[in-house]
Amino acid sequence: MKVKIVKKILADNDEIASENRKLMAEKGILCVNLMSGPGSGKTTLLEKTIPLLGEKHGLGTAVIEGDVEGDLDGARLDNLGAPVVQLNTTGACHLDASMIRSALEEFPADGIDILFVENVGNLVCPAGFDLGEDLRAVLLSVPEGDDKPIKYPAMFRKARALLINKIDLAPYLEFSTDRVREACRRINPDLLLMEISARTGEGLESWIGFLRENLEAKRGK
Amino acid sequence: MKVKIVKKILADNDEIASENRKLMAEKGILCVNLMSGPGSGKTTLLEKTIPLLGEKHGLGTAVIEGDVEGDLDGARLDNLGAPVVQLNTTGACHLDASMIRSALEEFPADGIDILFVENVGNLVCPAGFDLGEDLRAVLLSVPEGDDKPIKYPAMFRKARALLINKIDLAPYLEFSTDRVREACRRINPDLLLMEISARTGEGLESWIGFLRENLEAKRGK
Repeated sequence: MKVKIVKKILADNDEIASENRKLMAEKGILCVNLMSGPGSGKTTLLEKTIPLLGEKHGLGTAVIEGDVEGDLDGARLDNLGAPVVQLNTTGACHLDASMIRSALEEFPADGIDILFVENVGNLVCPAGFDLGEDLRAVLLSVPEGDDKPIKYPAMFRKARALLINKIDLAPYLEFSTDRVREACRRINPDLLLMEISARTGEGLESWIGFLRENLEAKRGK
Repeated sequence: MKVKIVKKILADNDEIASENRKLMAEKGILCVNLMSGPGSGKTTLLEKTIPLLGEKHGLGTAVIEGDVEGDLDGARLDNLGAPVVQLNTTGACHLDASMIRSALEEFPADGIDILFVENVGNLVCPAGFDLGEDLRAVLLSVPEGDDKPIKYPAMFRKARALLINKIDLAPYLEFSTDRVREACRRINPDLLLMEISARTGEGLESWIGFLRENLEAKRGK
């Protein structure tokens, strides 16, 4: 794992994002921007996803791990066999395209099919920054409550998939997936909902299928 | 409930915060800035706190409710008898002092002992903005995980109290209050930890006692 301290660069974010997108298209890498509030389970999801993609489907993965400080999450992922670059934003509340560009330089030239970008845990700011990803997947965990799409619509508006995580805690909480679905229908009718528990593994086959389909679509198979 | 659309004003935040602080000192109002990630339970805590302070202790409260969009949280609090001003930041990821100043104009002149400001659900950005509050209370809910103070230290550094919420879910999760305590000892040794469940009411007597002590200290009793 490499740890990089990154700063916001005052260049046009969208321009750099386009360059990132072009670079990953040339390499046939599917880039997934994983976003959520703090503690929704992004890192746990990656801990389960990386071995499933590798061992079951022979797919190589890599991770750009974004955190305000420290390398706790990068360290959790570092023994899974996938290359990990830990970014520290030193206070900044989101990743931007220039940070991704600087991380891309650190990866090996070959062997990456899917690159996961774990954004800073924040349901507001990351929504405004294109990183050059192919798709955005948002996690919403059951304990956070079913009102989040209504309260933080920007995050859900541009996402391709919404993973309702920690579904194993649903028996102990009041949470209506229907309320989430209804709100998302108004905000983003094409959003694909999946109910999962990253901890227990429930529902992960849908997520893995979703990733494989998008990788194959990108590669024109 | 009043709903106000607010925008960031390019004036010196700290200067306006000082004016807010002075205004509330003149009125003997204790102002509590309530902060956390999305879905940690700030609104539920207020739903329980306002009646406890009012009915048991005869204290008048008011709420400034900060959200990116909508009035869901304000509506939840609106039938508790305390005046509520709902602020919409229209995209901004935190409240600032000028937003608080504009909300203060909406409250009745008398009868407020404690003013709660429910900040935007975000564990990063609100930490950098003084609103003129007397103290900051941060909520961290058990399902979010015990690594949050290490990953988002700025939020915990300036807080007076840390409420570990949803403690009723602890039997179903791995969460170490000791790990939180140890991290906070390094970040902010004076931070007061309380374990609560806003939903079940567990631990709220400590929170109410904490608020009353701070109110009395402010009024020099």
